[in-house]
Amino acid sequence: MRIVIADPLAYSDSFERALRAALPSTDFVRWPDLADGAEYDLLVAWHLPKEMIAVPRSLRAIFCFGAGTDQLLNDPRIPADLPIARLQDQGQAEQLLDYAMHAVFARLHDDVATRADQHARLWRLPHRQNRTRGSLRTAVLGLGPLGLHVARGLSAAGFPVSAWSRNPRRIDGVACLHGDEGLGPCVDGADVVVNLLPSRHETKGILSDWLFSRLAPGAYVVNLGRGDHLDEEALRAALDRGWLGAAWLDVFSVEPLPPEHWFWRHERIRLTPHRAGLPTPQGVAASIAAVVAALEQGRRLPGLVRSGEAD
Amino acid sequence: MRIVIADPLAYSDSFERALRAALPSTDFVRWPDLADGAEYDLLVAWHLPKEMIAVPRSLRAIFCFGAGTDQLLNDPRIPADLPIARLQDQGQAEQLLDYAMHAVFARLHDDVATRADQHARLWRLPHRQNRTRGSLRTAVLGLGPLGLHVARGLSAAGFPVSAWSRNPRRIDGVACLHGDEGLGPCVDGADVVVNLLPSRHETKGILSDWLFSRLAPGAYVVNLGRGDHLDEEALRAALDRGWLGAAWLDVFSVEPLPPEHWFWRHERIRLTPHRAGLPTPQGVAASIAAVVAALEQGRRLPGLVRSGEAD
Repeated sequence: MRIVIADPLAYSDSFERALRAALPSTDFVRWPDLADGAEYDLLVAWHLPKEMIAVPRSLRAIFCFGAGTDQLLNDPRIPADLPIARLQDQGQAEQLLDYAMHAVFARLHDDVATRADQHARLWRLPHRQNRTRGSLRTAVLGLGPLGLHVARGLSAAGFPVSAWSRNPRRIDGVACLHGDEGLGPCVDGADVVVNLLPSRHETKGILSDWLFSRLAPGAYVVNLGRGDHLDEEALRAALDRGWLGAAWLDVFSVEPLPPEHWFWRHERIRLTPHRAGLPTPQGVAASIAAVVAALEQGRRLPGLVRSGEAD
Repeated sequence: MRIVIADPLAYSDSFERALRAALPSTDFVRWPDLADGAEYDLLVAWHLPKEMIAVPRSLRAIFCFGAGTDQLLNDPRIPADLPIARLQDQGQAEQLLDYAMHAVFARLHDDVATRADQHARLWRLPHRQNRTRGSLRTAVLGLGPLGLHVARGLSAAGFPVSAWSRNPRRIDGVACLHGDEGLGPCVDGADVVVNLLPSRHETKGILSDWLFSRLAPGAYVVNLGRGDHLDEEALRAALDRGWLGAAWLDVFSVEPLPPEHWFWRHERIRLTPHRAGLPTPQGVAASIAAVVAALEQGRRLPGLVRSGEAD
């Protein structure tokens, strides 16, 4: 088994050590350190390198070095029948939960207003009572492995959670809604909405004026899905008229986010450079090892994705 | 039983309703709406009103409308043998835990650096890996009911916790240290230190240069105790040389914090106007009802405080 790694993040010592420990008899090569026309079995990449003209005919699968697969599903260089398996990394799921938790606590404490009061040197109690976790409604969009972990984690921490997916789901302690007619009821009155949907034609622009208008006043929008989920002009309008409290954005339609983009300087936006959930050496190694074992045994690949299938 | 309420926060409808529901046969009077020389049994106050010359001889106890009692213990108008019972309010404890959790998540995500990068329009990954809860060391100073709740809550959320108290304690999942020699080991290498000590002679200035120098680089200091716990000049020096990451301050030596104080405008300080843990109607009513029952039955008052005894 020969595996080609084509992701700079995976070139670090810690990733290499974890991969070699998990798959000691595997031949790992970094792209493009391989001979012209070299054959290999598995390609590990988040997106295909620009300079890669085609994948070799020997290729048996692509391992997506990340949770979102749209950038591979939409790549014309990849044959439609080539299996794509995506990363399943518990460490990444935990980071995304921590990011969501941070945003939820910021909403609980009305962080934007708190900082504005400090800036204005205002000593005041805007409310006689602080909000409690049980009073703060959260909504999670997307119930893939990551959304599921975030929904369960928020619920375990004591926040009421509703969640939305394409198909029906049941999760203890989470109000699950699905399908077109379920989206509105899922987000109605939510104080925080956390998006972890995959990027698909039907989810484009789902963070829209229609959705924002259903949230509670002062709600926070947390985008951990893809940049194209967000209607940017609707966000700006909802922030500027004070309807939304803040937006926490980790993903963008163009990455890196261009320096001239208004997101950078908006006082109600907190942005991070697509780093809310980074793959971990242990998680990547375990996930690749599971895919390799399935390939060798002719089993269905864990984390297998087809266009429109992942949720 | 006649109870005089002398705290503006307690004058709201929600507090009055909760009190009347918990103690239906009690006569509640707001200070100063009572006749000259009127007798009463229990005074509810966070501090004695300035205009109050003396407490009546009929007074059997003072109920401190807050967790910290120094402002009453140090008041010469209160006879030394008059029992003081302090608020024991689970809702307040939960708010303080939430405040600490928010600060801990902010440290986990290096919030000050994240915001600085955004301000500079820098798209970069400072680290290849995000920190995990299990790697973030927290230290809680003070193991009264509030410190205990915070220590347990941080530990339950997956953060390693050490805690410090005057006398030895044992708490599942928390590394407990005590006494003068225990303070250093408690805070050594901590990423966040949360102060919930009472204000006493021996705890004054405990958030000192000596303590800061033992923390991990970039640590956050969270002061939920009293303003006099903090050596302000040591804090400024440690923040400005970049040793401390941030300070989250809810309590101050002078309250309201004067508008000219440097805390307001320091970019590494997040301040709140002594509101991290507000008394709740249900918690106050239950706590006062417990004190009233103990008074009527001649039992030791719950939450009884004597100078230097509370921890």
